[in-house]
Amino acid sequence: MRILLTNDDGINAPGLAALADEMSGHGEVIIYAPVSEMSAVGHAITLSDPLRVVEFHKNGRLFGHAVRGTPADCVKIATWVLNRQDRKPDILISGINLGSNTGINTIYSGTVSAATEGAIFGIPAIAISLASFTSRDFSVAAQFAPVVARHLLANPLPPGVFLNVNVPAVPKEAVQGIAITRQGFTNYIEEYEVRRDPHDREYYWLTGEKMEVETNSDIDDRAIIENRISITPIQLDLTCYPALSQLRNWRITF
Amino acid sequence: MRILLTNDDGINAPGLAALADEMSGHGEVIIYAPVSEMSAVGHAITLSDPLRVVEFHKNGRLFGHAVRGTPADCVKIATWVLNRQDRKPDILISGINLGSNTGINTIYSGTVSAATEGAIFGIPAIAISLASFTSRDFSVAAQFAPVVARHLLANPLPPGVFLNVNVPAVPKEAVQGIAITRQGFTNYIEEYEVRRDPHDREYYWLTGEKMEVETNSDIDDRAIIENRISITPIQLDLTCYPALSQLRNWRITF
Repeated sequence: MRILLTNDDGINAPGLAALADEMSGHGEVIIYAPVSEMSAVGHAITLSDPLRVVEFHKNGRLFGHAVRGTPADCVKIATWVLNRQDRKPDILISGINLGSNTGINTIYSGTVSAATEGAIFGIPAIAISLASFTSRDFSVAAQFAPVVARHLLANPLPPGVFLNVNVPAVPKEAVQGIAITRQGFTNYIEEYEVRRDPHDREYYWLTGEKMEVETNSDIDDRAIIENRISITPIQLDLTCYPALSQLRNWRITF
Repeated sequence: MRILLTNDDGINAPGLAALADEMSGHGEVIIYAPVSEMSAVGHAITLSDPLRVVEFHKNGRLFGHAVRGTPADCVKIATWVLNRQDRKPDILISGINLGSNTGINTIYSGTVSAATEGAIFGIPAIAISLASFTSRDFSVAAQFAPVVARHLLANPLPPGVFLNVNVPAVPKEAVQGIAITRQGFTNYIEEYEVRRDPHDREYYWLTGEKMEVETNSDIDDRAIIENRISITPIQLDLTCYPALSQLRNWRITF
Protein backbone atom coordinates (compact mmCIF):
# COMPACT_ATOMS: atom_id res chain seq x y z
CA MET A 1 0.00 0.00 0.00
CA ARG A 2 1.30 3.44 -1.00
CA ILE A 3 0.30 6.07 1.56
CA LEU A 4 0.57 9.79 0.80
CA LEU A 5 0.71 11.98 3.90
CA THR A 6 0.39 15.73 4.21
CA ASN A 7 -0.82 18.30 6.75
CA ASP A 8 -1.26 22.02 7.30
CA ASP A 9 0.86 22.42 10.44
CA GLY A 10 4.08 22.03 8.44
CA ILE A 11 6.45 19.16 7.69
CA ASN A 12 8.12 19.36 11.10
CA ALA A 13 4.87 19.13 13.10
CA PRO A 14 4.67 16.36 15.73
CA GLY A 15 1.20 15.28 14.52
CA LEU A 16 2.62 14.40 11.10
CA ALA A 17 5.54 12.56 12.68
CA ALA A 18 3.16 10.47 14.80
CA LEU A 19 1.03 9.67 11.74
CA ALA A 20 4.10 8.76 9.65
CA ASP A 21 5.44 6.49 12.41
CA GLU A 22 2.14 4.64 12.67
CA MET A 23 1.43 4.36 8.94
CA SER A 24 4.96 3.15 8.10
CA GLY A 25 3.87 -0.17 9.64
CA HIS A 26 1.13 -0.45 7.02
CA GLY A 27 2.83 0.42 3.73
CA GLU A 28 5.15 2.75 1.89
CA VAL A 29 4.82 6.25 3.34
CA ILE A 30 5.41 9.28 1.07
CA ILE A 31 5.29 12.76 2.60
CA TYR A 32 4.70 16.10 0.86
CA ALA A 33 3.94 18.78 3.41
CA PRO A 34 4.21 22.56 3.67
CA VAL A 35 7.56 24.04 4.76
CA SER A 36 5.78 26.06 7.44
CA GLU A 37 2.45 26.28 9.21
CA MET A 38 -0.48 26.83 6.81
CA SER A 39 -3.52 26.82 9.10
CA ALA A 40 -6.80 28.34 7.91
CA VAL A 41 -5.59 28.61 4.32
CA GLY A 42 -8.81 27.06 3.06
CA HIS A 43 -8.52 25.45 -0.36
CA ALA A 44 -5.85 27.87 -1.55
CA ILE A 45 -3.53 26.91 -4.40
CA THR A 46 -0.45 28.67 -5.71
CA LEU A 47 -0.97 29.95 -9.25
CA SER A 48 0.87 33.26 -9.54
CA ASP A 49 4.12 32.08 -7.97
CA PRO A 50 6.45 29.19 -8.61
CA LEU A 51 6.34 26.21 -6.30
CA ARG A 52 9.52 25.09 -4.54
CA VAL A 53 10.00 21.55 -3.33
CA VAL A 54 13.00 20.43 -1.27
CA GLU A 55 13.92 17.19 0.43
CA PHE A 56 13.42 17.34 4.18
CA HIS A 57 15.70 15.29 6.42
CA LYS A 58 15.04 14.33 10.02
CA ASN A 59 17.28 12.33 12.34
CA GLY A 60 19.80 11.91 9.52
CA ARG A 61 17.41 10.39 6.98
CA LEU A 62 14.95 11.53 4.33
CA PHE A 63 11.59 12.20 5.98
CA GLY A 64 9.70 13.74 3.06
CA HIS A 65 9.37 16.67 0.69
CA ALA A 66 8.86 20.20 1.98
CA VAL A 67 6.72 22.35 -0.30
CA ARG A 68 6.70 26.14 -0.23
CA GLY A 69 2.96 26.17 -0.73
CA THR A 70 -0.40 25.21 0.69
CA PRO A 71 -1.70 21.76 1.68
CA ALA A 72 -3.63 21.59 -1.63
CA ASP A 73 -0.40 22.44 -3.50
CA CYS A 74 1.32 19.56 -1.67
CA VAL A 75 -1.28 17.05 -2.85
CA LYS A 76 -1.23 18.45 -6.41
CA ILE A 77 2.54 18.28 -6.81
CA ALA A 78 2.84 14.93 -5.04
CA THR A 79 0.15 13.39 -7.24
CA TRP A 80 1.77 14.81 -10.36
CA VAL A 81 5.24 13.49 -9.41
CA LEU A 82 3.93 10.07 -8.33
CA ASN A 83 1.70 9.65 -11.40
CA ARG A 84 4.69 10.32 -13.65
CA GLN A 85 6.56 7.59 -11.78
CA ASP A 86 3.54 5.27 -12.12
CA ARG A 87 3.28 5.27 -8.32
CA LYS A 88 -0.22 6.61 -7.75
CA PRO A 89 -1.03 6.64 -4.01
CA ASP A 90 -3.62 4.17 -2.74
CA ILE A 91 -4.70 6.51 0.01
CA LEU A 92 -4.11 10.05 1.23
CA ILE A 93 -4.13 11.00 4.90
CA SER A 94 -3.89 14.64 5.97
CA GLY A 95 -2.94 15.38 9.57
CA ILE A 96 -2.77 14.76 12.40
CA ASN A 97 -3.88 18.35 12.87
CA LEU A 98 -3.38 20.05 16.22
CA GLY A 99 -6.91 21.34 16.85
CA SER A 100 -10.29 20.02 15.75
CA ASN A 101 -11.68 20.66 12.27
CA THR A 102 -15.39 20.62 12.94
CA GLY A 103 -18.41 22.83 12.32
CA ILE A 104 -17.74 25.99 10.32
CA ASN A 105 -13.99 25.47 10.87
CA THR A 106 -14.18 22.64 8.33
CA ILE A 107 -14.52 25.31 5.64
CA TYR A 108 -11.32 27.15 6.66
CA SER A 109 -9.25 24.06 7.27
CA GLY A 110 -6.05 23.42 5.36
CA THR A 111 -6.05 19.86 6.71
CA VAL A 112 -9.47 19.22 5.18
CA SER A 113 -8.54 21.02 1.94
CA ALA A 114 -5.70 18.54 1.35
CA ALA A 115 -8.19 15.66 1.63
CA THR A 116 -10.52 17.59 -0.71
CA GLU A 117 -7.70 17.74 -3.24
CA GLY A 118 -7.18 13.99 -2.86
CA ALA A 119 -10.87 13.44 -3.61
CA ILE A 120 -10.58 15.65 -6.71
CA PHE A 121 -7.84 13.28 -7.95
CA GLY A 122 -9.96 10.23 -7.10
CA ILE A 123 -7.69 9.12 -4.25
CA PRO A 124 -9.45 7.73 -1.14
CA ALA A 125 -8.79 10.48 1.38
CA ILE A 126 -8.95 11.13 5.11
CA ALA A 127 -8.43 14.33 7.11
CA ILE A 128 -7.61 13.58 10.74
CA SER A 129 -7.42 16.06 13.62
CA LEU A 130 -6.83 15.94 17.36
CA ALA A 131 -9.37 18.03 19.24
CA SER A 132 -6.89 19.95 21.37
CA PHE A 133 -4.61 22.95 20.87
CA THR A 134 -2.33 21.99 23.75
CA SER A 135 -1.98 18.20 23.79
CA ARG A 136 1.20 16.68 22.44
CA ASP A 137 -0.11 13.11 22.64
CA PHE A 138 -1.14 12.09 19.14
CA SER A 139 -1.02 8.36 19.93
CA VAL A 140 -4.78 7.63 19.99
CA ALA A 141 -5.43 9.52 16.75
CA ALA A 142 -2.37 7.86 15.16
CA GLN A 143 -3.62 4.41 16.15
CA PHE A 144 -7.05 5.18 14.74
CA ALA A 145 -5.72 6.30 11.34
CA PRO A 146 -4.95 2.80 9.96
CA VAL A 147 -8.27 1.50 11.32
CA VAL A 148 -10.32 4.04 9.39
CA ALA A 149 -8.01 3.73 6.35
CA ARG A 150 -8.59 -0.04 6.24
CA HIS A 151 -12.37 0.42 6.33
CA LEU A 152 -12.24 3.13 3.64
CA LEU A 153 -10.18 0.97 1.29
CA ALA A 154 -12.49 -2.02 1.84
CA ASN A 155 -15.65 0.07 1.32
CA PRO A 156 -15.02 2.74 -1.34
CA LEU A 157 -17.09 5.90 -1.04
CA PRO A 158 -18.81 7.52 -4.05
CA PRO A 159 -16.57 9.74 -6.25
CA GLY A 160 -15.90 13.13 -4.68
CA VAL A 161 -16.54 11.99 -1.10
CA PHE A 162 -13.92 11.72 1.66
CA LEU A 163 -13.71 11.46 5.45
CA ASN A 164 -13.18 14.15 8.05
CA VAL A 165 -12.09 12.47 11.29
CA ASN A 166 -11.78 14.24 14.64
CA VAL A 167 -10.39 12.46 17.68
CA PRO A 168 -10.98 13.63 21.26
CA ALA A 169 -7.82 14.37 23.26
CA VAL A 170 -8.31 11.65 25.87
CA PRO A 171 -6.57 8.34 26.60
CA LYS A 172 -7.77 5.41 24.49
CA GLU A 173 -9.70 3.84 27.36
CA ALA A 174 -11.72 7.06 27.78
CA VAL A 175 -12.88 7.11 24.12
CA GLN A 176 -16.66 6.55 24.15
CA GLY A 177 -16.90 4.90 20.74
CA ILE A 178 -17.18 6.19 17.21
CA ALA A 179 -19.85 8.58 15.93
CA ILE A 180 -20.82 8.98 12.27
CA THR A 181 -21.66 12.68 12.24
CA ARG A 182 -22.70 15.59 10.08
CA GLN A 183 -20.89 18.91 9.93
CA GLY A 184 -22.47 21.26 12.44
CA PHE A 185 -22.61 25.04 12.38
CA THR A 186 -20.63 25.67 15.55
CA ASN A 187 -18.47 28.72 14.94
CA TYR A 188 -16.31 31.24 16.73
CA ILE A 189 -17.67 34.54 17.99
CA GLU A 190 -15.05 36.74 16.41
CA GLU A 191 -13.62 40.05 17.44
CA TYR A 192 -10.81 42.11 16.01
CA GLU A 193 -8.35 43.53 18.44
CA VAL A 194 -7.30 47.00 17.26
CA ARG A 195 -3.62 47.77 17.89
CA ARG A 196 -1.06 50.37 16.89
CA ASP A 197 2.33 49.47 15.47
CA PRO A 198 5.61 51.22 16.45
CA HIS A 199 4.98 53.69 13.59
CA ASP A 200 1.56 54.53 15.08
CA ARG A 201 -0.35 52.87 12.27
CA GLU A 202 -3.46 50.87 13.15
CA TYR A 203 -3.72 47.15 12.59
CA TYR A 204 -6.27 44.45 13.42
CA TRP A 205 -5.84 40.99 14.85
CA LEU A 206 -8.56 38.35 14.70
CA THR A 207 -9.54 36.75 18.00
CA GLY A 208 -12.48 34.56 18.87
CA GLU A 209 -14.19 32.31 21.33
CA LYS A 210 -16.00 29.15 20.37
CA MET A 211 -19.76 29.57 20.67
CA GLU A 212 -21.95 27.03 22.38
CA VAL A 213 -21.92 23.68 20.63
CA GLU A 214 -25.12 22.33 19.10
CA THR A 215 -26.81 19.72 21.26
CA ASN A 216 -27.82 17.21 18.61
CA SER A 217 -25.78 14.04 19.18
CA ASP A 218 -25.07 13.45 15.48
CA ILE A 219 -23.15 16.76 15.15
CA ASP A 220 -19.34 16.63 14.85
CA ASP A 221 -18.59 19.04 17.72
CA ARG A 222 -21.08 17.30 19.99
CA ALA A 223 -19.38 13.94 19.44
CA ILE A 224 -16.03 15.41 20.49
CA ILE A 225 -17.51 16.88 23.68
CA GLU A 226 -18.86 13.42 24.47
CA ASN A 227 -15.36 11.95 23.95
CA ARG A 228 -16.40 10.06 20.84
CA ILE A 229 -14.36 9.90 17.63
CA SER A 230 -16.27 11.85 14.97
CA ILE A 231 -16.29 10.72 11.32
CA THR A 232 -18.05 13.03 8.84
CA PRO A 233 -18.37 12.17 5.14
CA ILE A 234 -17.60 15.34 3.16
CA GLN A 235 -18.45 15.97 -0.48
CA LEU A 236 -16.95 18.15 -3.23
CA ASP A 237 -20.36 19.03 -4.63
CA LEU A 238 -21.43 22.26 -2.90
CA THR A 239 -24.82 22.49 -4.64
CA CYS A 240 -27.80 22.99 -2.34
CA TYR A 241 -30.17 20.63 -4.17
CA PRO A 242 -33.33 21.53 -2.20
CA ALA A 243 -32.88 25.17 -3.29
CA LEU A 244 -32.89 24.34 -7.03
CA SER A 245 -36.67 24.16 -7.36
CA GLN A 246 -37.06 27.23 -5.14
CA LEU A 247 -34.80 29.19 -7.53
CA ARG A 248 -36.64 27.91 -10.61
CA ASN A 249 -39.82 29.36 -9.14
CA TRP A 250 -38.26 32.82 -9.09
CA ARG A 251 -38.74 32.96 -12.88
CA ILE A 252 -36.07 35.60 -13.32
CA THR A 253 -36.22 37.48 -16.58
CA PHE A 254 -33.37 39.57 -17.98
CA MET B 1 -30.35 49.20 1.02
CA ARG B 2 -26.76 48.77 2.29
CA ILE B 3 -24.67 46.80 -0.20
CA LEU B 4 -21.30 45.34 0.76
CA LEU B 5 -19.03 44.61 -2.20
CA THR B 6 -15.80 42.65 -2.34
CA ASN B 7 -13.85 40.54 -4.83
CA ASP B 8 -10.67 38.50 -5.23
CA ASP B 9 -9.13 40.37 -8.16
CA GLY B 10 -8.19 43.30 -5.92
CA ILE B 11 -9.76 46.67 -5.13
CA ASN B 12 -8.54 48.24 -8.38
CA ALA B 13 -10.03 45.56 -10.66
CA PRO B 14 -12.37 46.76 -13.42
CA GLY B 15 -14.98 44.11 -12.56
CA LEU B 16 -15.42 45.60 -9.09
CA ALA B 17 -15.62 49.12 -10.51
CA ALA B 18 -18.37 48.05 -12.93
CA LEU B 19 -20.29 46.35 -10.10
CA ALA B 20 -19.90 49.39 -7.82
CA ASP B 21 -21.10 51.75 -10.56
CA GLU B 22 -24.18 49.66 -11.19
CA MET B 23 -25.07 48.98 -7.54
CA SER B 24 -24.64 52.60 -6.48
CA GLY B 25 -27.94 53.21 -8.27
CA HIS B 26 -29.65 50.76 -5.89
CA GLY B 27 -28.40 51.72 -2.45
CA GLU B 28 -25.42 52.65 -0.29
CA VAL B 29 -22.34 50.84 -1.58
CA ILE B 30 -19.57 49.88 0.87
CA ILE B 31 -16.40 48.28 -0.49
CA TYR B 32 -13.83 46.17 1.36
CA ALA B 33 -11.57 44.40 -1.10
CA PRO B 34 -8.05 42.94 -1.14
CA VAL B 35 -5.15 45.31 -1.88
CA SER B 36 -3.91 42.96 -4.59
CA GLU B 37 -5.08 39.99 -6.61
CA MET B 38 -6.10 37.01 -4.45
CA SER B 39 -7.27 34.42 -6.96
CA ALA B 40 -7.47 30.75 -5.97
CA VAL B 41 -6.99 31.51 -2.29
CA GLY B 42 -9.93 29.29 -1.37
CA HIS B 43 -11.51 30.10 1.96
CA ALA B 44 -8.26 31.32 3.50
CA ILE B 45 -8.32 33.68 6.47
CA THR B 46 -5.47 35.55 8.12
CA LEU B 47 -4.87 34.35 11.67
CA SER B 48 -1.12 34.47 12.27
CA ASP B 49 -0.59 37.97 10.93
CA PRO B 50 -2.18 41.33 11.61
CA LEU B 51 -4.68 42.70 9.13
CA ARG B 52 -4.10 46.12 7.59
CA VAL B 53 -6.95 48.21 6.25
CA VAL B 54 -6.43 51.49 4.39
CA GLU B 55 -8.78 53.85 2.62
CA PHE B 56 -8.55 53.54 -1.15
CA HIS B 57 -9.17 56.61 -3.29
CA LYS B 58 -10.02 56.63 -6.97
CA ASN B 59 -10.63 59.65 -9.18
CA GLY B 60 -10.09 61.93 -6.19
CA ARG B 61 -12.73 60.39 -3.94
CA LEU B 62 -13.02 57.53 -1.45
CA PHE B 63 -13.79 54.32 -3.35
CA GLY B 64 -13.51 51.79 -0.53
CA HIS B 65 -11.24 50.05 1.96
CA ALA B 66 -8.22 48.08 0.80
CA VAL B 67 -7.46 45.08 3.01
CA ARG B 68 -4.07 43.35 3.12
CA GLY B 69 -5.76 39.97 3.32
CA THR B 70 -8.00 37.49 1.58
CA PRO B 71 -11.58 37.94 0.32
CA ALA B 72 -12.88 36.14 3.43
CA ASP B 73 -10.82 38.53 5.61
CA CYS B 74 -12.46 41.47 3.78
CA VAL B 75 -15.95 40.22 4.61
CA LYS B 76 -14.98 39.46 8.23
CA ILE B 77 -13.48 42.87 8.95
CA ALA B 78 -16.19 44.74 7.02
CA THR B 79 -18.94 42.92 8.91
CA TRP B 80 -17.21 43.57 12.23
CA VAL B 81 -16.75 47.29 11.50
CA LEU B 82 -20.29 47.73 10.14
CA ASN B 83 -21.91 45.79 12.99
CA ARG B 84 -20.17 48.03 15.52
CA GLN B 85 -21.61 51.03 13.66
CA ASP B 86 -25.06 49.37 13.65
CA ARG B 87 -24.86 49.33 9.84
CA LYS B 88 -25.19 45.63 9.05
CA PRO B 89 -25.21 45.09 5.27
CA ASP B 90 -28.47 43.94 3.66
CA ILE B 91 -26.63 42.07 0.95
CA LEU B 92 -23.12 41.05 -0.03
CA ILE B 93 -21.97 40.80 -3.64
CA SER B 94 -18.55 39.43 -4.51
CA GLY B 95 -17.16 40.13 -7.97
CA ILE B 96 -17.40 40.70 -10.81
CA ASN B 97 -14.66 38.12 -11.19
CA LEU B 98 -12.64 37.96 -14.38
CA GLY B 99 -13.03 34.26 -15.24
CA SER B 100 -15.80 31.79 -14.49
CA ASN B 101 -16.14 30.08 -11.11
CA THR B 102 -17.79 26.83 -12.09
CA GLY B 103 -17.21 23.11 -11.61
CA ILE B 104 -14.27 22.18 -9.39
CA ASN B 105 -13.01 25.79 -9.65
CA THR B 106 -15.82 26.77 -7.30
CA ILE B 107 -13.83 25.12 -4.51
CA TYR B 108 -10.66 27.19 -5.16
CA SER B 109 -12.45 30.47 -5.77
CA GLY B 110 -11.74 33.50 -3.62
CA THR B 111 -14.80 35.19 -5.15
CA VAL B 112 -17.02 32.35 -3.95
CA SER B 113 -15.28 32.20 -0.55
CA ALA B 114 -16.26 35.82 0.14
CA ALA B 115 -19.90 34.91 -0.48
CA THR B 116 -19.43 31.85 1.74
CA GLU B 117 -18.24 34.17 4.51
CA GLY B 118 -21.32 36.34 3.99
CA ALA B 119 -23.53 33.27 4.39
CA ILE B 120 -21.68 32.37 7.62
CA PHE B 121 -22.66 35.81 8.95
CA GLY B 122 -26.26 35.35 7.78
CA ILE B 123 -26.00 38.02 5.07
CA PRO B 124 -27.77 37.24 1.76
CA ALA B 125 -24.81 36.70 -0.56
CA ILE B 126 -24.00 36.46 -4.25
CA ALA B 127 -20.75 35.59 -6.03
CA ILE B 128 -20.76 36.83 -9.62
CA SER B 129 -18.22 36.04 -12.33
CA LEU B 130 -17.75 36.80 -16.01
CA ALA B 131 -16.88 33.68 -17.99
CA SER B 132 -13.86 35.13 -19.80
CA PHE B 133 -10.23 35.78 -18.98
CA THR B 134 -9.82 38.39 -21.70
CA SER B 135 -13.04 40.42 -21.90
CA ARG B 136 -13.08 43.86 -20.37
CA ASP B 137 -16.82 44.34 -20.87
CA PHE B 138 -18.49 43.70 -17.52
CA SER B 139 -21.69 45.52 -18.49
CA VAL B 140 -24.02 42.52 -18.90
CA ALA B 141 -22.88 40.92 -15.63
CA ALA B 142 -23.13 44.30 -13.88
CA GLN B 143 -26.69 44.83 -15.14
CA PHE B 144 -27.66 41.34 -13.99
CA ALA B 145 -26.33 41.84 -10.43
CA PRO B 146 -29.22 44.04 -9.17
CA VAL B 147 -31.75 41.73 -10.87
CA VAL B 148 -30.57 38.66 -8.99
CA ALA B 149 -30.07 40.71 -5.80
CA ARG B 150 -33.69 41.89 -5.90
CA HIS B 151 -34.96 38.31 -6.29
CA LEU B 152 -32.72 37.08 -3.47
CA LEU B 153 -33.91 39.76 -1.06
CA ALA B 154 -37.56 39.08 -1.96
CA ASN B 155 -37.15 35.30 -1.59
CA PRO B 156 -34.73 34.53 1.23
CA LEU B 157 -32.80 31.27 0.93
CA PRO B 158 -32.39 28.86 3.87
CA PRO B 159 -29.59 29.73 6.35
CA GLY B 160 -26.14 28.88 5.02
CA VAL B 161 -27.15 29.00 1.35
CA PHE B 162 -25.99 31.60 -1.18
CA LEU B 163 -25.81 32.09 -4.95
CA ASN B 164 -22.96 31.48 -7.36
CA VAL B 165 -23.69 33.38 -10.59
CA ASN B 166 -21.70 33.02 -13.81
CA VAL B 167 -22.40 35.23 -16.80
CA PRO B 168 -21.35 34.35 -20.37
CA ALA B 169 -19.11 36.93 -22.05
CA VAL B 170 -21.53 37.85 -24.83
CA PRO B 171 -23.64 40.93 -25.59
CA LYS B 172 -26.95 41.09 -23.74
CA GLU B 173 -29.00 40.22 -26.82
CA ALA B 174 -26.98 36.99 -27.23
CA VAL B 175 -27.76 35.74 -23.70
CA GLN B 176 -29.94 32.63 -24.06
CA GLY B 177 -31.80 32.99 -20.77
CA ILE B 178 -31.08 31.98 -17.20
CA ALA B 179 -30.24 28.45 -16.05
CA ILE B 180 -30.63 27.23 -12.47
CA THR B 181 -27.73 24.81 -12.32
CA ARG B 182 -25.77 22.44 -10.11
CA GLN B 183 -22.01 22.56 -9.63
CA GLY B 184 -20.43 20.22 -12.14
CA PHE B 185 -17.13 18.36 -11.89
CA THR B 186 -15.41 20.01 -14.85
CA ASN B 187 -11.78 20.52 -13.91
CA TYR B 188 -8.43 21.40 -15.38
CA ILE B 189 -6.00 18.76 -16.57
CA GLU B 190 -3.01 20.03 -14.68
CA GLU B 191 0.67 19.86 -15.42
CA TYR B 192 3.65 21.37 -13.67
CA GLU B 193 6.22 23.04 -15.82
CA VAL B 194 9.68 22.35 -14.39
CA ARG B 195 12.04 25.32 -14.67
CA ARG B 196 15.44 26.36 -13.33
CA ASP B 197 16.02 29.72 -11.68
CA PRO B 198 19.13 31.90 -12.30
CA HIS B 199 20.81 30.09 -9.38
CA ASP B 200 20.15 26.74 -11.09
CA ARG B 201 17.58 25.65 -8.56
CA GLU B 202 14.50 23.82 -9.78
CA TYR B 203 11.00 25.23 -9.44
CA TYR B 204 7.54 24.22 -10.61
CA TRP B 205 4.76 26.22 -12.15
CA LEU B 206 1.19 24.99 -12.36
CA THR B 207 -0.41 25.02 -15.81
CA GLY B 208 -3.58 23.42 -17.05
CA GLU B 209 -6.16 23.05 -19.74
CA LYS B 210 -9.86 22.81 -19.08
CA MET B 211 -11.14 19.30 -19.65
CA GLU B 212 -14.24 18.59 -21.70
CA VAL B 213 -17.35 20.03 -20.12
CA GLU B 214 -20.11 17.72 -18.93
CA THR B 215 -23.01 17.48 -21.36
CA ASN B 216 -25.91 17.61 -18.92
CA SER B 217 -27.77 20.89 -19.49
CA ASP B 218 -28.29 21.59 -15.78
CA ILE B 219 -24.52 21.79 -15.13
CA ASP B 220 -22.94 25.22 -14.53
CA ASP B 221 -20.22 24.94 -17.19
CA ARG B 222 -22.71 23.63 -19.75
CA ALA B 223 -24.99 26.64 -19.24
CA ILE B 224 -22.08 29.00 -19.93
CA ILE B 225 -21.16 27.18 -23.15
CA GLU B 226 -24.79 27.58 -24.22
CA ASN B 227 -24.57 31.35 -23.49
CA ARG B 228 -26.99 31.11 -20.58
CA ILE B 229 -26.48 32.83 -17.23
CA SER B 230 -25.82 30.12 -14.63
CA ILE B 231 -27.14 30.43 -11.05
CA THR B 232 -26.08 27.69 -8.62
CA PRO B 233 -27.28 27.62 -5.01
CA ILE B 234 -24.28 26.76 -2.80
CA GLN B 235 -24.41 25.53 0.79
CA LEU B 236 -22.03 25.74 3.75
CA ASP B 237 -22.88 22.23 4.90
CA LEU B 238 -20.33 19.91 3.27
CA THR B 239 -21.80 16.71 4.73
CA CYS B 240 -22.49 13.95 2.21
CA TYR B 241 -25.80 12.80 3.72
CA PRO B 242 -26.26 9.68 1.56
CA ALA B 243 -22.91 8.37 2.85
CA LEU B 244 -23.96 8.55 6.53
CA SER B 245 -25.84 5.25 6.53
CA GLN B 246 -23.09 3.63 4.46
CA LEU B 247 -20.54 4.63 7.11
CA ARG B 248 -22.75 3.42 9.97
CA ASN B 249 -22.76 -0.01 8.31
CA TRP B 250 -18.99 -0.17 8.56
CA ARG B 251 -19.38 -0.85 12.30
CA ILE B 252 -15.85 0.30 13.08
CA THR B 253 -14.53 -0.85 16.44
CA PHE B 254 -11.51 0.67 18.15
